Amino acid sequence: MTVPAPAAPPSPAAGRPVWVLNGPNLGRLGAREPEIYGRAGLDDLRQACLQWGQELGLAVEVRQTDSEAELIGWLHQAADQAIAVVLNPAAFTHYSYGLRDAVVQVPLVIEVHLSNPAAREEFRHNSVISAVAKGTIAGFGVDSYYLALSELARLAAAST
Amino acid sequence: MTVPAPAAPPSPAAGRPVWVLNGPNLGRLGAREPEIYGRAGLDDLRQACLQWGQELGLAVEVRQTDSEAELIGWLHQAADQAIAVVLNPAAFTHYSYGLRDAVVQVPLVIEVHLSNPAAREEFRHNSVISAVAKGTIAGFGVDSYYLALSELARLAAAST
Amino acid sequence: MTVPAPAAPPSPAAGRPVWVLNGPNLGRLGAREPEIYGRAGLDDLRQACLQWGQELGLAVEVRQTDSEAELIGWLHQAADQAIAVVLNPAAFTHYSYGLRDAVVQVPLVIEVHLSNPAAREEFRHNSVISAVAKGTIAGFGVDSYYLALSELARLAAAST
Amino acid sequence: MTVPAPAAPPSPAAGRPVWVLNGPNLGRLGAREPEIYGRAGLDDLRQACLQWGQELGLAVEVRQTDSEAELIGWLHQAADQAIAVVLNPAAFTHYSYGLRDAVVQVPLVIEVHLSNPAAREEFRHNSVISAVAKGTIAGFGVDSYYLALSELARLAAAST
Amino acid sequence: MTVPAPAAPPSPAAGRPVWVLNGPNLGRLGAREPEIYGRAGLDDLRQACLQWGQELGLAVEVRQTDSEAELIGWLHQAADQAIAVVLNPAAFTHYSYGLRDAVVQVPLVIEVHLSNPAAREEFRHNSVISAVAKGTIAGFGVDSYYLALSELARLAAAST
Amino acid sequence: MTVPAPAAPPSPAAGRPVWVLNGPNLGRLGAREPEIYGRAGLDDLRQACLQWGQELGLAVEVRQTDSEAELIGWLHQAADQAIAVVLNPAAFTHYSYGLRDAVVQVPLVIEVHLSNPAAREEFRHNSVISAVAKGTIAGFGVDSYYLALSELARLAAAST
Amino acid sequence: MTVPAPAAPPSPAAGRPVWVLNGPNLGRLGAREPEIYGRAGLDDLRQACLQWGQELGLAVEVRQTDSEAELIGWLHQAADQAIAVVLNPAAFTHYSYGLRDAVVQVPLVIEVHLSNPAAREEFRHNSVISAVAKGTIAGFGVDSYYLALSELARLAAAST
Amino acid sequence: MTVPAPAAPPSPAAGRPVWVLNGPNLGRLGAREPEIYGRAGLDDLRQACLQWGQELGLAVEVRQTDSEAELIGWLHQAADQAIAVVLNPAAFTHYSYGLRDAVVQVPLVIEVHLSNPAAREEFRHNSVISAVAKGTIAGFGVDSYYLALSELARLAAAST
Amino acid sequence: MTVPAPAAPPSPAAGRPVWVLNGPNLGRLGAREPEIYGRAGLDDLRQACLQWGQELGLAVEVRQTDSEAELIGWLHQAADQAIAVVLNPAAFTHYSYGLRDAVVQVPLVIEVHLSNPAAREEFRHNSVISAVAKGTIAGFGVDSYYLALSELARLAAAST
Amino acid sequence: MTVPAPAAPPSPAAGRPVWVLNGPNLGRLGAREPEIYGRAGLDDLRQACLQWGQELGLAVEVRQTDSEAELIGWLHQAADQAIAVVLNPAAFTHYSYGLRDAVVQVPLVIEVHLSNPAAREEFRHNSVISAVAKGTIAGFGVDSYYLALSELARLAAAST
Amino acid sequence: MTVPAPAAPPSPAAGRPVWVLNGPNLGRLGAREPEIYGRAGLDDLRQACLQWGQELGLAVEVRQTDSEAELIGWLHQAADQAIAVVLNPAAFTHYSYGLRDAVVQVPLVIEVHLSNPAAREEFRHNSVISAVAKGTIAGFGVDSYYLALSELARLAAAST
Amino acid sequence: MTVPAPAAPPSPAAGRPVWVLNGPNLGRLGAREPEIYGRAGLDDLRQACLQWGQELGLAVEVRQTDSEAELIGWLHQAADQAIAVVLNPAAFTHYSYGLRDAVVQVPLVIEVHLSNPAAREEFRHNSVISAVAKGTIAGFGVDSYYLALSELARLAAAST
Repeated sequence: MTVPAPAAPPSPAAGRPVWVLNGPNLGRLGAREPEIYGRAGLDDLRQACLQWGQELGLAVEVRQTDSEAELIGWLHQAADQAIAVVLNPAAFTHYSYGLRDAVVQVPLVIEVHLSNPAAREEFRHNSVISAVAKGTIAGFGVDSYYLALSELARLAAAST
Repeated sequence: MTVPAPAAPPSPAAGRPVWVLNGPNLGRLGAREPEIYGRAGLDDLRQACLQWGQELGLAVEVRQTDSEAELIGWLHQAADQAIAVVLNPAAFTHYSYGLRDAVVQVPLVIEVHLSNPAAREEFRHNSVISAVAKGTIAGFGVDSYYLALSELARLAAAST
Repeated sequence: MTVPAPAAPPSPAAGRPVWVLNGPNLGRLGAREPEIYGRAGLDDLRQACLQWGQELGLAVEVRQTDSEAELIGWLHQAADQAIAVVLNPAAFTHYSYGLRDAVVQVPLVIEVHLSNPAAREEFRHNSVISAVAKGTIAGFGVDSYYLALSELARLAAAST
Repeated sequence: MTVPAPAAPPSPAAGRPVWVLNGPNLGRLGAREPEIYGRAGLDDLRQACLQWGQELGLAVEVRQTDSEAELIGWLHQAADQAIAVVLNPAAFTHYSYGLRDAVVQVPLVIEVHLSNPAAREEFRHNSVISAVAKGTIAGFGVDSYYLALSELARLAAAST
Repeated sequence: MTVPAPAAPPSPAAGRPVWVLNGPNLGRLGAREPEIYGRAGLDDLRQACLQWGQELGLAVEVRQTDSEAELIGWLHQAADQAIAVVLNPAAFTHYSYGLRDAVVQVPLVIEVHLSNPAAREEFRHNSVISAVAKGTIAGFGVDSYYLALSELARLAAAST
Repeated sequence: MTVPAPAAPPSPAAGRPVWVLNGPNLGRLGAREPEIYGRAGLDDLRQACLQWGQELGLAVEVRQTDSEAELIGWLHQAADQAIAVVLNPAAFTHYSYGLRDAVVQVPLVIEVHLSNPAAREEFRHNSVISAVAKGTIAGFGVDSYYLALSELARLAAAST
Repeated sequence: MTVPAPAAPPSPAAGRPVWVLNGPNLGRLGAREPEIYGRAGLDDLRQACLQWGQELGLAVEVRQTDSEAELIGWLHQAADQAIAVVLNPAAFTHYSYGLRDAVVQVPLVIEVHLSNPAAREEFRHNSVISAVAKGTIAGFGVDSYYLALSELARLAAAST
Repeated sequence: MTVPAPAAPPSPAAGRPVWVLNGPNLGRLGAREPEIYGRAGLDDLRQACLQWGQELGLAVEVRQTDSEAELIGWLHQAADQAIAVVLNPAAFTHYSYGLRDAVVQVPLVIEVHLSNPAAREEFRHNSVISAVAKGTIAGFGVDSYYLALSELARLAAAST
Repeated sequence: MTVPAPAAPPSPAAGRPVWVLNGPNLGRLGAREPEIYGRAGLDDLRQACLQWGQELGLAVEVRQTDSEAELIGWLHQAADQAIAVVLNPAAFTHYSYGLRDAVVQVPLVIEVHLSNPAAREEFRHNSVISAVAKGTIAGFGVDSYYLALSELARLAAAST
Repeated sequence: MTVPAPAAPPSPAAGRPVWVLNGPNLGRLGAREPEIYGRAGLDDLRQACLQWGQELGLAVEVRQTDSEAELIGWLHQAADQAIAVVLNPAAFTHYSYGLRDAVVQVPLVIEVHLSNPAAREEFRHNSVISAVAKGTIAGFGVDSYYLALSELARLAAAST
Repeated sequence: MTVPAPAAPPSPAAGRPVWVLNGPNLGRLGAREPEIYGRAGLDDLRQACLQWGQELGLAVEVRQTDSEAELIGWLHQAADQAIAVVLNPAAFTHYSYGLRDAVVQVPLVIEVHLSNPAAREEFRHNSVISAVAKGTIAGFGVDSYYLALSELARLAAAST
Repeated sequence: MTVPAPAAPPSPAAGRPVWVLNGPNLGRLGAREPEIYGRAGLDDLRQACLQWGQELGLAVEVRQTDSEAELIGWLHQAADQAIAVVLNPAAFTHYSYGLRDAVVQVPLVIEVHLSNPAAREEFRHNSVISAVAKGTIAGFGVDSYYLALSELARLAAAST
């Protein structure tokens, strides 16, 4: 048996749609506790994701909201359009069963975190989202998003 | 502020050393619960990691042991030689504080899991390793290793 | 002492107002996990409730929202207008103390669930709403709503 | 897709058999803590259930026992004769795993409670029965029984 | 060492801006459970706070929302404009880690409660906000707000 | 409805008696962990409280003891003489049910803390006193006492 | 105020009826774990209680059953006839909420234990009965019954 | 030191008496959840036990009851007659401290289970009986009984 | 075997010494929460105990203290002089392991409570004293003391 | 339906292979806590198992190790060669999830214990192995092994 | 690097002051539970400590109190005079946060226990003092004190 | 009664054998987290222990292993040869019940820790070893070993 080589980047024009959805307080990136979350702002993150998407053949769209309902709504749209999602649920990670019930409906969700929740306060050690996500990537700053996008590209290549 | 582009692969000859260390029962990959862990065996995993390493400019070495002591010993060596480690602690994840005390000593450890522990038995929801690792990648099968190696390459490029 | 016979249906024109309020992800009925929630969509549910209301002499209005704030607001209106409420709090059942504080203000709230939470994941076994509702009906699919409406009709008849 | 209209009542003569089984201390209805359980006695409850059964096309039989063994025995008979059961397990709700193991064997059991356990003492918040019942109806006094019977009639009509 | 005298009230014209932010269901003050929350409505509270602000040299603005996202947004604005906040998180106190993550960003937040949560239901004994607020004032009805404003005036005077 | 204006200070000569009672280790203020408790000593605190009392029309008396029995005794005296109490139970906060049983007897007790217990060790998050106090003020250093005294003056003015 | 003197024993002929009800395994007294329960058998206990009843002016009847249902039934009878009960629930103490619901109905129940449950296995430290009994007497062997009867005589005398 | 050889079967005529006692719902074997409990009914089990007893030199008697009181009574008889017991407490395993107190009195009780409770629902993981039984055999279907009988024969042989 | 008759009262002159020791806040009897503790004051209790002692042939001495250290000291004296103790530990019941370590040293201690702790707040359900006392009597108001003294007289008579 | 008779012993020469694997400290049998584990040493146990194997038609091999890794390795070999295993995990029972992951791979594992863990320290009440074993036999000293081997012989006979 | 040799004993005349402070019930040494605490009384302990102090060049003073307040007071004095303390908190170990807050203030406190708390009742396994002491020595009888004094001498020598 | 003076050092030549056994990661002393464990390496520790042994008349041997099995094996040897052991179980302290079962077999084991576990992470507060050791010495760096050796010398002298 052979493990497939890393995805050969498809032509950017035909990129698969991917949504990068961010939960509460992530609009404050750069300003908020930079010793934990780094100095890159949400716009930096958006630019990086778009660029990475181009390189990986993904049509990336980055959104952020502090609203649980809006985030749930985006996941509903992703479910309807079968769009893969990179999700940073931020604080919703720890209590939003509403979000969880929405994640279940989307075929492919990767949970990401900028910081390493296990190395922070006790309440951050529990995720109500992880069990219904494909997988989790945490602790690598904005690179967590890169890794998630990269994995989506690999999965797309593998399923072609 | 700009987020750095993905690491341009350095020449394979000069690859940075990386150890991919695997805990108990991972020598059984392919044979063991393939519906959870996939059909790729440890040799497949080794080949894949070596190939990925070459592509990423990393001198990858893959080891596996069922012995807590041996795994701790390898981490001690990695600490002494400042070698970055991709660690799949397998079942040790859930109780080996001995392993945890060893991980603390290594400057850069990424914890990986083939399956998504949060989607399995209750006892797998707790990791005594995560809090002392740089970050965690779980749920992507052998791709979890690729992502970890890829992140090590990015970190190496960033620190140059 | 005699237990009253089932409510003789009042004339539909003079139906008492009842609101059927639905929480997050219930707009996805039919599409979402049909093996748990059935294949009837929210519109089917709305039609059924309206028809049942007509039969039971209740002026039924069915609403759904993914927003905790909107749901709280509707409960405030119901409290002001003394409208009885059939409430399916969905995932809010398990954590929204904000919703609980709103339910307390409404004279008559019946909590309903399509599925049987006690037969599902551990986190669904706890309801922060039940203690402040009149009662709970769970596990009968859309019939849970019929039963709740039917009880409201009985209570209305009894209080006349 | 359409949700079925409420069950058109079948001819009383051909009523489907339904047992309404009541656990410990429910023979004391009317005398016991009337501020919680109301002033209707067990005979009132029996009469009401019989009358409701007639209206709904069900051949209702109401039994009560303080004995766990007798209640288990009745459930065994119901299982053998495929009789649907409305079960108020009373205090057994909170500890009788023996009852639970019997409920599992009956194809259709609806758990009912006169009062709302979630609004009472802490120990009443846990039911060891709910997970193996079809569903639960709690908090509506004797109407809880009416609602359960009404649902049984609907299910019977739907399965014809 | 001397403890400073109470703040000499600065001229009202130059009052420091303070936001008094109120969480879910607090728009219902006066109508909601008056035996717990008193008979003063939100407008009474607003008037009182404005008047107290004038006396204390603070430019007070009172807001209320049932929306977690809106409350988080206000805290973001307060963080950007370095406005001190008197925060009554209401039911969010007990579960909104999203709110907590926003509070951390504001230099000066005082948590207030009208009632004494420790004397009420068990779930109200835990606050996820207190640990990241400057301090907490609970149990004094609308006076809780007066005390918080008064402390802000003292802190302002002390830091001049 | 109108919220009363802040208490117009009564004449100091006729000040209402108020006791400010302090528990174990508070005699060490200034010397003890000044980064937490500040540099003001108990005498500074006493002077401040006396001065604040004068301004607020209260006849303040400040006492401190490391003895649970003595503190209980003072509360008994306060109960007999109907004296309002500002109580900093210090470490007794977390375990002295004896103190709690004494607090219950005093018509008006306000619990104060210099530091914010919720931001410190886990064991400080639980107060066995709060549930039987009028309210709690925590986290404002010596100002916590000022706020408590100020509230007592308001309550006195309101009850006149 | 004066505390009443001990009850002057009424004439035995007119003794008030008292039932001494014993739960499971108490028919084995004398034979069962004599180092814990003593060597007096159930008949010895019965004789002693009858004799004590005579001395105290109580018409004592002693019953024992291993059956929860029978014990519940006796309590129902006691409730109907307003008979005071001395109850040794034996192992039912720790789990029979059915018994608890029956005890609530009897105006006067004193819980007794031969041994001291607090000095035995962990599971014996919790009583689901105590909260609904008048009081508890435990640890004095058969004297526990004497004390309970003696208190019933005192209460009877006091209420005459 | 030598470990004794397996018991040489004594003559059937002189077989030692052994009771095989079965708790609630075990009368339903064969009909009840056959995927868990197998298709052998209680009569099959009885025949097998009698035959095994003959082979092992034991006079086996098999009983079943859904009644806790009856099961306790049988254990009392076994205690009086010094009869060894093979006990399948079924659901009583998890809550009947009354049964536990009876088991303590029998010199030799072996606890058996058809299924493996550790592999089933969480509540089945706790046995209140095991600590007072000689030992436990679980998970081998009807063979669990054979093993228990076989061990009783060995113990009988060893003690001769 | 015969159970001994109640102790024939020895001559008062030769009464055995018994100390009735009362913990914190019990000096407030009569004034403190009379709906729970009754209207009899500590002096009433003392008089009653002395009188009861005379009737029972016991030389009773009643003491009360709010001080844990003083209470421990009295128990040391009782241990040295082999004096039996009736102990109402009041709030110390729930946390004073210091008291517990002293109780262990006294040959005969009976724990009493005026009220029924099991019927009050959760924290009162746990006693750290019961396990090391001879037994416990709770819930009978001042009669709890009478019962304890009466038992001491019986034990004295039995040991003569 | 008939339950099969006990296995007629096959010829020893053709015995099915069975491994009896023992965990840490079991090499110390005989010397270690003989009041718990008996006086038979590991060699006695080996001899007994070999002899029993001969009688039962099993080719038994007995191994012991204090090493988790070695025990895991043996289980891997057993999995590869489809050898049935009698496993006494000793102290690993309570924490070695590594061992658990290895047990899962072996088609047939019976867990045995010499002593009855449920009758010993609290930490021995939990087994992380039981849920993945075929079944458990505990409390019969070396006979536990005999019973396990005997069951393996029966299963072998049944599957022929 | 070299580890220092044991402290050469300084001249007794110039001994550093050390206080050996003992908590509740330790005045009863010798009389109290000698099977746990040994037969040496407090005076024996004092003599031994003084003698050891002389040998080690420490001016030892031994005190004992049953009073939490007095013990706290001594620690305050030790803090003011920078005296090292050997502290046996006895039962206060398990609940006195007041003592803990005092220990924090003393630069050097060694916690000692005569017995090994981990080998006794569950409640003795938790120390609220250990986390704020330099270290803990437990289980060696009076030698625990010798070891603590010896360590103080070593620390004194090392800091000279 | 007199407490014995410190052990007069026996002649070094005839020193009693003592093993100082160290668990996982302790071979990394000096390099590993020096702010916690100090800068002395394992060789420094060995030299110090040997020298201290000479002074105390003990034939000290120092070993270290990362292997649970090897550590268990050494304890078995110590048990066979009746050698006293100073044991630093390192991370095994918190989970190795295998080690615990081995410690039980050695007549004299003193548990030591370099750091004070109670002042570190929550998981370090629990020791599964302490309950079966003679005693524990923690928090004094390498001096913890000196104190343990010193106590062994005292015990040896006392038992001569």
